[in-house]
Amino acid sequence: MILINGQPENRIDVADRGLQYGDGLFETIAYRHGRLEFLSDHLSRLMEGCDRLNIAFSATQQQSLLSEIDSVCQQLNSDAVIKVMLTRGAGGRGYRYQADMLPTRIISSHAMPVYPVANISGITVRICQQRLAINPSLAGIKHLNRLEQILARNEWQDETIAEGLMLDYQERLIEGTMSNLFLVQNNKLFTAELSSSGIAGIMRKQLIRIADSLDIPLSITSLTVDDLKSAEEVFVCNSLIGIWPVIRITDLDVDLSYGPLTLKLQNALNSINTDE
Amino acid sequence: MILINGQPENRIDVADRGLQYGDGLFETIAYRHGRLEFLSDHLSRLMEGCDRLNIAFSATQQQSLLSEIDSVCQQLNSDAVIKVMLTRGAGGRGYRYQADMLPTRIISSHAMPVYPVANISGITVRICQQRLAINPSLAGIKHLNRLEQILARNEWQDETIAEGLMLDYQERLIEGTMSNLFLVQNNKLFTAELSSSGIAGIMRKQLIRIADSLDIPLSITSLTVDDLKSAEEVFVCNSLIGIWPVIRITDLDVDLSYGPLTLKLQNALNSINTDE
Repeated sequence: MILINGQPENRIDVADRGLQYGDGLFETIAYRHGRLEFLSDHLSRLMEGCDRLNIAFSATQQQSLLSEIDSVCQQLNSDAVIKVMLTRGAGGRGYRYQADMLPTRIISSHAMPVYPVANISGITVRICQQRLAINPSLAGIKHLNRLEQILARNEWQDETIAEGLMLDYQERLIEGTMSNLFLVQNNKLFTAELSSSGIAGIMRKQLIRIADSLDIPLSITSLTVDDLKSAEEVFVCNSLIGIWPVIRITDLDVDLSYGPLTLKLQNALNSINTDE
Repeated sequence: MILINGQPENRIDVADRGLQYGDGLFETIAYRHGRLEFLSDHLSRLMEGCDRLNIAFSATQQQSLLSEIDSVCQQLNSDAVIKVMLTRGAGGRGYRYQADMLPTRIISSHAMPVYPVANISGITVRICQQRLAINPSLAGIKHLNRLEQILARNEWQDETIAEGLMLDYQERLIEGTMSNLFLVQNNKLFTAELSSSGIAGIMRKQLIRIADSLDIPLSITSLTVDDLKSAEEVFVCNSLIGIWPVIRITDLDVDLSYGPLTLKLQNALNSINTDE
């Protein structure tokens, strides 16, 4: 089921700036056991994206969005993915937009993706050739300009490789094509700071919270491939997959164990109450 | 009039990757005096974009595109802008696409934009705060990930400022938000090289050709704001506006004259035969 501005519809105006320029945002939310996981965090990131892109998303429209998400979920009888897209709307003159444009809300439900790898025991990852551009004004938010991720994800077809890790153009290790990255060294967690590239994932946010609540030392910092080589544990995460332990990095010929800190975080994640 | 894959239609599948990820390309072609200006150059850049993004745009589809552009033009009775969008099509699993996806062709006609400035005698430009990210794999082509240009163009509302100039994150002066940039120093032309950011404009290409044919020295190189300050003439260009001489750069408090080399190029541009 797809709702566009509240109406059942699967097509959108060609003039919408989401299509014309990628002028918009999205969220991918897990719907499990009849509830939306971390909904308030997803909405919070969406709102931050609106602030950053100057998309005028009014309180009334926000209420409509919540009501539409609810309507789509009520049609579901199994776990699913809810994708929310919010574009600046249709119109404007070239790249210029008007301040009073009406954003387009697109809510759709999708089957939970099935990944062809044994993720519970750990995944194999590779290092992508495609880099992430340095761009502080777009970093962190989940906008619709995703060609870097597309180029990176399509560098490999090997089904045994579950994810690709991406560096920025300054050789900093940032994230996976569809996930955030964590390392463990000396019982301390590390994840990349995302002020100049990358997407600040909602699962990353939960894990930062969990680490804090469990008094696990965490450093949000610059990482490099060398950090990856010397890590004791490595995992990637996102809202749909939760945590995937990394047991092999092909390009570096590195093998890793599914370690105790990864397991501890997985258990903590499984036991926390997600918000409504 | 809008044709989507040959059918009169103004809406597109929400699942199209053009909307989902900005996974596609576009061209903006001037239709004047009953002909499409520099059509073969536009198609050539579109094909290069397909190569770079690995969009499988077959010879049959290319023929369909040409036929559809022709159909849209036949409906016109005045000068217009023909916009061609080509997306990777609908589908794929997340960022991953299938090799056999059918691209989406979208052809639309629009009124020629009217700019509220006296462009014939020269325009005022500013320097944008928003920078262009360094990204060699996406540089040069006219893809649908255009948030940088949107953020840059919406930094100002002053109608007397016709264009904003953009630097990259390494302080190199690259282009305007919707145009390419040329400078004149000592009777020599300079324009930015675009291997790591920017769009290689079709009008820029014509001017490079004209400079060659008129034996005007031209350097395609790295430019900085200092080059702008010391330039004798400055102009911006694109397929719709042709050449706009720059007579004032607000942020630098620089005033310039509408110079002889700019005029020479404008005259040459007006006199050349555009290809069919």
